[in-house]
Formats: sequence, C-alpha cells, structure tokens
Amino acid sequence: MQFTSEQRLDDGVLEREFTLGEIPGILWTPASASAPTPLILIGHPPLGLRRMYPRLAGRARYYAAEHGFAAATIELPGAGDRPRWAALDQARADLRRAMEAGEPVGDEIIQALVLPLVEKSVPEWQGALDTLLSLPGIGGPVGYEGGIISIGIRLAVVEPRIVAAGFFSGSLVPAAMFEEARRITIPLQVLLQWDDEGNDRQAALDLFDAFGSKEKTLHANMGGHTGVPQFELAPGAAFFARHLR
Amino acid sequence: MQFTSEQRLDDGVLEREFTLGEIPGILWTPASASAPTPLILIGHPPLGLRRMYPRLAGRARYYAAEHGFAAATIELPGAGDRPRWAALDQARADLRRAMEAGEPVGDEIIQALVLPLVEKSVPEWQGALDTLLSLPGIGGPVGYEGGIISIGIRLAVVEPRIVAAGFFSGSLVPAAMFEEARRITIPLQVLLQWDDEGNDRQAALDLFDAFGSKEKTLHANMGGHTGVPQFELAPGAAFFARHLR
Repeated sequence: MQFTSEQRLDDGVLEREFTLGEIPGILWTPASASAPTPLILIGHPPLGLRRMYPRLAGRARYYAAEHGFAAATIELPGAGDRPRWAALDQARADLRRAMEAGEPVGDEIIQALVLPLVEKSVPEWQGALDTLLSLPGIGGPVGYEGGIISIGIRLAVVEPRIVAAGFFSGSLVPAAMFEEARRITIPLQVLLQWDDEGNDRQAALDLFDAFGSKEKTLHANMGGHTGVPQFELAPGAAFFARHLR
Repeated sequence: MQFTSEQRLDDGVLEREFTLGEIPGILWTPASASAPTPLILIGHPPLGLRRMYPRLAGRARYYAAEHGFAAATIELPGAGDRPRWAALDQARADLRRAMEAGEPVGDEIIQALVLPLVEKSVPEWQGALDTLLSLPGIGGPVGYEGGIISIGIRLAVVEPRIVAAGFFSGSLVPAAMFEEARRITIPLQVLLQWDDEGNDRQAALDLFDAFGSKEKTLHANMGGHTGVPQFELAPGAAFFARHLR
C-alpha cells in the first residue's frame, strides 16, 4: 500500500489517497483516537471514485468526525482510472439499451453486469481489508455500507471480519444473489428509495424479506436513486455504533 | 383539567396524572426548560392506559429527558377506567371471532371497530391539546406518535397544530382511511413490524405508499406487533427534533 496524498480536512479528519497494486483507494481516519478504531468499508457503483467522491466522502467524514470510525473505499474494476473492462462496458451498454427501449430488464442482462463485478471485486475488498487492518490505529471490527448491494451481499456471506452492513438497495440484483441473501446472518440496515427510477420497489422489498439476518431494518424514503435524505446519516452511523463498538 | 397525582422520576422528568372531565391522562414534562417546549401526543390502542403504561412512559420519558419535549396521552373512549362502550366491545368480539376462526378480516369488521373510535376520540385529543397548550411551559409545535394509526391519520388531516407524526402501522385500517391518508402533507415517520401477527404487511406498505406527505420515512423491523426494537427510540426522537425545534 502506497499513500499518494494526504490532507487534514477542516473537521480534523485525515484523508489519504492510496494505491494497492493497481487499485486506487481513499482512507479517512478520525482526528485522534485513543485506541484502534473500527473500520467501515464504503461501497459504491462502478462510476469512478472521482465522480462518487462527494457522496462517499460525506459519509466517511461523518463516521470519522462524529463517531471516531475509520472509513475506506477502493476503486471498482473497470471504473475510474483503472483499465477499461470490455465485458463490463458491454453489459452496461446492454442494460442502457434495454432501459431506453422501455423493455423489461431481464435477469440475463443483470447477471452479465453484476456477477462478474462481484466475482472480481470481492477478493479485492478482502485484500484491501487485510492491508487496512494492518495499519496502526485501525483495529476492526468492520462494517460495510453502500451499493452495489450484490457486492455487499457476497462480502457479508464470505467475509467473517464484517460484522454489520448497511446496504443501499438501489441496484439490480441477479436472482442468484437472493440465495446468498438468505445466508446472511449479520445485522443489516437497508436504505430504499421509494421512487428509485432504476430499481424495482417490489424486488427490493422481496430482497429485504429474503435476508437471513435476525436483526434487519429497512429505511424507506421518498425520492429517486440519488435522493437519500441527509438525515439518514445519523441512524446509519448509530447502527454501526451499536454493532462495532 | 385536574392534576390527580405528581411524581418526579429518577431521570428528572415530572409525571403528572390528570383528568379532563371524565377522561384520564398523563403528562410528562422535562426536568427544566428555559422556554416553552414542543409537545408530543402519545397515541395507543384502546387497551387501557394502565396496561399500556410501560410502553407509553418509556417513550414519553425518553422524549422529555433526552430532548426536553413535553409528552402527553389520554385514555381512549371505552377503555381503562372510562365507561364501557358496548359497540366497541361488540366490534372487538367480532374481530376476535374472525381472527380465531382464521377467516379473512373484512373491511366491515375493521370499519365497525375503528371508525367510531376515530370519530369519538379525535375531538377528545383536540380538546386535550387546547388545555395542554394553555399550561405554562408548553408551547408547541405539536407532534403525534403511536397507534392506532387511524386516529393519527385523522388528526394529521384535521388538526393544523400537529406538524409531524410518527405512526405505528400495527393496526387494521379501514379502506376509507386510505383516502384521508392521501390528504396528509406533514412529515411522517412510520414504524412497521415485518412479521406483525395482527397486521397485513402488504396493506401496511400500500398505506405508506398512499400518504400524501412529501417527506415520509418507513422503518421496518423484524418481529411481531409488540417487538419494536429499543433502538427505534433515538431516530423517532430525532425525527421530532428536526420538525418541532
């Protein structure tokens, strides 16, 4: 892991960009901590860290400044400054074509888009976790939050260091992921945008129902995909505080 | 209004029982307040204040101790120490019979149980509001929270002093109330117990969808009717803090 930039933000949070091999990432740590802090992995769709930065940093800085958590994110394969990934581009084009034509988006299209991304990115997040947890001051336990939800589902199933997850049900979920969802047992808090233009509400409710976790909470709010209200930051952080402290 | 008892609780909150004509009630006020406080009306099903006391007081004391709100509740007609109400008893018996027989609970049964309760109790809550807001130290604005949700819906439509409501979607709602639900415009936060034994989940989601409010949030949690998790107290209070301060 190589740190490539470092700045102290006005809330005292330290923001460091890094690379892990070819993978860029960002780490936020609290101004000061008397003991190793829990870590929250901040997930996102494959749109590039630069484009996603305001939303990711907003959440990460809140967790760090208000709760003293560390937070980190890495770039997804095929996105941002990472090498193009022809299969991902093709799957996206197919999805866009179907949506623009007003056709139902079949599971085949969703699978082609999401499953390779899950397969490739989950080991990368796990590798990042190995490195991040070896840094001084970061001790775990670990939470995961954000989209795309399929990556979160797989991580919640395969990665025992993740003890709680806050999902954003704003993605297309292949039918095959429902089976994995049933195997999740960690506490979950799930955000749903009621009028998400790219997301089927009933499918999102069915997925929430499928999660195997004994403690799971759904927070549904009005508005479209990017309209998650600012006031969801506090209960999101309180959820992690309950389970990571 | 006559105060019939008064005690200072260990969190500093002052709990006073009162009667308003024939209607008993309880008022909780914060230990100290530098200015008139907002007021939260705590709703409940017609099971009697004495039986509901632990749950009502738990919420009221949290609002008072943590946020400095006043909170109050009154007994519903036909419940607790108030005179029996034959029609309510009959409607309850009909409901119980249908549920025990495993029959679908038709809208007729729900109407017979809920609509008279709404008609009779809403003016009582409004009368209590007149009196409570005239007390020194209580200034409004006013929130309403709890069940039964049909009383809350009617209050949210007809009572302009109520500026935010936290509903508990654990009641049977007559089809006629959906029309009123569409006319609500104040911010709402709605609790749903995902496996509520006495409540149809899809009907609760349909009702949430029907509310006309631009800001409405659904918090769904696992478990049965009385299993609302303790951790919902904080976001419930934060919701009122956003809208009553």
